[in-house]
Amino acid sequence: MTIRAVVWGENIHERTNEVVRGVYPDGMHACIAEALNSRDGIIAETATLQEPEHGLPQSRLDTTDVLLWWGHAAHGDVADEVVERVARAVWGGMGLIVLHSAHFSKIFKRLMGTPCNLTWREAGERERLWITAPNHPIVAGLPPYFELEHEEMYGEPFGIPEPDETVMIGWFQGGEVFRSGVTWRRGAGRVFYFQPGHETYPTYHDATVRQILQNAVVWAHNPAPRLSGVTDAPNRPATAAPEPIEVRGPRLHQDGEEGFR
Amino acid sequence: MTIRAVVWGENIHERTNEVVRGVYPDGMHACIAEALNSRDGIIAETATLQEPEHGLPQSRLDTTDVLLWWGHAAHGDVADEVVERVARAVWGGMGLIVLHSAHFSKIFKRLMGTPCNLTWREAGERERLWITAPNHPIVAGLPPYFELEHEEMYGEPFGIPEPDETVMIGWFQGGEVFRSGVTWRRGAGRVFYFQPGHETYPTYHDATVRQILQNAVVWAHNPAPRLSGVTDAPNRPATAAPEPIEVRGPRLHQDGEEGFR
Amino acid sequence: MTIRAVVWGENIHERTNEVVRGVYPDGMHACIAEALNSRDGIIAETATLQEPEHGLPQSRLDTTDVLLWWGHAAHGDVADEVVERVARAVWGGMGLIVLHSAHFSKIFKRLMGTPCNLTWREAGERERLWITAPNHPIVAGLPPYFELEHEEMYGEPFGIPEPDETVMIGWFQGGEVFRSGVTWRRGAGRVFYFQPGHETYPTYHDATVRQILQNAVVWAHNPAPRLSGVTDAPNRPATAAPEPIEVRGPRLHQDGEEGFR
Amino acid sequence: MTIRAVVWGENIHERTNEVVRGVYPDGMHACIAEALNSRDGIIAETATLQEPEHGLPQSRLDTTDVLLWWGHAAHGDVADEVVERVARAVWGGMGLIVLHSAHFSKIFKRLMGTPCNLTWREAGERERLWITAPNHPIVAGLPPYFELEHEEMYGEPFGIPEPDETVMIGWFQGGEVFRSGVTWRRGAGRVFYFQPGHETYPTYHDATVRQILQNAVVWAHNPAPRLSGVTDAPNRPATAAPEPIEVRGPRLHQDGEEGFR
Repeated sequence: MTIRAVVWGENIHERTNEVVRGVYPDGMHACIAEALNSRDGIIAETATLQEPEHGLPQSRLDTTDVLLWWGHAAHGDVADEVVERVARAVWGGMGLIVLHSAHFSKIFKRLMGTPCNLTWREAGERERLWITAPNHPIVAGLPPYFELEHEEMYGEPFGIPEPDETVMIGWFQGGEVFRSGVTWRRGAGRVFYFQPGHETYPTYHDATVRQILQNAVVWAHNPAPRLSGVTDAPNRPATAAPEPIEVRGPRLHQDGEEGFR
Repeated sequence: MTIRAVVWGENIHERTNEVVRGVYPDGMHACIAEALNSRDGIIAETATLQEPEHGLPQSRLDTTDVLLWWGHAAHGDVADEVVERVARAVWGGMGLIVLHSAHFSKIFKRLMGTPCNLTWREAGERERLWITAPNHPIVAGLPPYFELEHEEMYGEPFGIPEPDETVMIGWFQGGEVFRSGVTWRRGAGRVFYFQPGHETYPTYHDATVRQILQNAVVWAHNPAPRLSGVTDAPNRPATAAPEPIEVRGPRLHQDGEEGFR
Repeated sequence: MTIRAVVWGENIHERTNEVVRGVYPDGMHACIAEALNSRDGIIAETATLQEPEHGLPQSRLDTTDVLLWWGHAAHGDVADEVVERVARAVWGGMGLIVLHSAHFSKIFKRLMGTPCNLTWREAGERERLWITAPNHPIVAGLPPYFELEHEEMYGEPFGIPEPDETVMIGWFQGGEVFRSGVTWRRGAGRVFYFQPGHETYPTYHDATVRQILQNAVVWAHNPAPRLSGVTDAPNRPATAAPEPIEVRGPRLHQDGEEGFR
Repeated sequence: MTIRAVVWGENIHERTNEVVRGVYPDGMHACIAEALNSRDGIIAETATLQEPEHGLPQSRLDTTDVLLWWGHAAHGDVADEVVERVARAVWGGMGLIVLHSAHFSKIFKRLMGTPCNLTWREAGERERLWITAPNHPIVAGLPPYFELEHEEMYGEPFGIPEPDETVMIGWFQGGEVFRSGVTWRRGAGRVFYFQPGHETYPTYHDATVRQILQNAVVWAHNPAPRLSGVTDAPNRPATAAPEPIEVRGPRLHQDGEEGFR
């Protein structure tokens, strides 16, 4: 079975900043998609902020198994309607991989219900990522730790709900730590946040990072058909109750009505 | 130390529906507040949708330890600004107890990041609530189960994130089950969802329910001073790093700037 | 990739009890293995208490991807050495599916760290299992609920640690509820407990139950190579530290020594 | 209400090692108890390995609200019977705080169900502990981080089940990270593991460490009466079922019998 991934990129600094263009001449999203396409069984395409509906019309989400999201400078420009559309897709079973500065993306904050804030420093310092869940599918085959010689520091406290799983913790040269790889389930969809990926450094060219992203796509893929009606609250009247019951007592509602929202 | 609780009530059906007025002549919020005030160490007041700022100006939240929330017919009338204000208070340490049909309140959905949907039936059937976490502070001293002769059925699947703790599960006469008492932590604030409380039944007059609400207020109370700046993402420049580091590599940001959001 | 499953059966009541023999003439383990073998990609064999080393020598565990465990009358007869061997295999990545009365098996209690107790009643009553995590891989494709006309009642409180995921909750005709399908991760191994399966009823002939067991085997399979040294606590001396450090202060240990256990 | 704490100490290196005796002339347990006694509302006593029943007869556990455990060189000398007794007390509601090298204590491994292993280095290096859950009761009032100039390095992977809450993460000078403050619930008892505390360093004289231990005792205290029968699996016969049912189908058991274990 082929997993269909879409890499969403904000695609701004790659065009406006000389340094970033040098590292990612075709855009960060293209670099990430290329990494995914080098794994058998994954077909990755891209979408960007500048496309109509940010490249994510409903029809495309319907055929996307796993969405990866990188944004930084223009979180506020993402249409709320698209954010809700992506949230519904996740609840219905689409995987979502949230990258680096997308901790402040609308979609991540929407799914977490928390500020998703952190401390930060752009000093080109060393990050060493330790595997806390050996042989978790996201880090299968990795050594106990790996290093990125240059990364932006993201430090605790990270304003997230308690993760379902802590897979990696980052050590920073300047003295901080961060839960750099963490997972949650939201409805039928799996969510993975991965800390590395500052746009001025060649992080997405790193072989280990690419292996993790490939692994994460496989892990986040839910092969079951996408659920529909993920926000419905259906009335099941007494006549349809699994056990026979008689209606008793005073009522506000009529059978089969929609209820309040 | 006295815990300051505020019971927020939508206060609509108590005024517009004969049956509900009969059960809760002073409003459901007043009944719940009275239950809380009967426990030593809790002082409970009320707030309603109809008051300015729904009775929840910032100054009041600042001095509220635990907020209880009951709403049903008018979730959409709650101002988004007040919802965000309450969310920030929770992240900063205020406890939140979400009651029955408030599963669809804006504040609960905001903090969960999921649809919070369920199936339902208004048939006056029996609910039996089983304690799954004996002697959890919320159910301290309770028997293995207790019954409510008339409750609205809420059935699984309940569209919530995996709870931090499952404290009670409800059995319904018509054949359904529900995670009727569940908890999460959101920032420094504790959140408890409690299923019973349909407005046409005398649920909040029930002695066990009242005991649970009292217990839950005590459990949800975080005595530490409220955190401020709960959404800040402070820059910690290299000069302020805990370990001495030299800035390396290309940069997007200047020291101490605010970063993108 | 083929998943290699082993179904461990206590294999006592099938031989000593007329009723059980009638339902499972070849043994429960054989019935379950047959169910698994009917799914493409799974090859299932059996092992029983009566075989040398209970059919689970180290060499066999080394080539087992997922182990299923059914026991009831003879938990105490399982050798502690085999229990530890299975625990190490789970920590190293073997999946484990614990069935019905195996809630009291040594291996389940060993991995949970809790009593794993419950209330029970053998009355042939109806159990209705509700899916609480729609489209979780274990219940992919299932309807909102399914029924077993005859099951042994297992009731809350279930003496387990908070599950990583609650996938199913059971409703019982006599009035109880139970977390009938729950998961945990233990090291690199996934663990699934599934409540149905009393030996006097034809549960393992039920099509939905068989589908769940097949799904669960796929879910529990960790394709990464089995981890070794899962209980080691290696010393990493200063000379091998990722960052250069000088040894300071008084010491108890010499470099590279084993430490206390 | 006064919280009754007992600090259990192995009490070996304090007597056999010159350095440790210099740092803790009255024993580490005495130093920790003294720290706890300086908080209003806590009365702390001590128990040691060398006392009859290691100072933990059943009668004493029955009146202990929170037990703290420090051991290192003699984990194997702790009687299994005492370990089971402590486990039952925790399941029944006693709090347990596990300190430093007690990650390898029998009681911690017993309650976790995992190897509880880690990597380590005794180099007197700096540990910086970051608060990941601001204003969690265990770290109420603490700054974002604090430092211990000399600690033993404990590094990931830490062989534990996914924690209920990650409260602190440690940064080590030599390049490692560790989940240095983590919690679980086991039955009605709360468990807290806290990493610092190598016996050759003055860790338990540190003001912040002492504040954390005091906070942790308050947090771990369950004021409800201790549960009894924590391993029982009671039969609830059809005649005692909450809902009227008739017994159907074949049976293995008689009403009210004990069942298999």
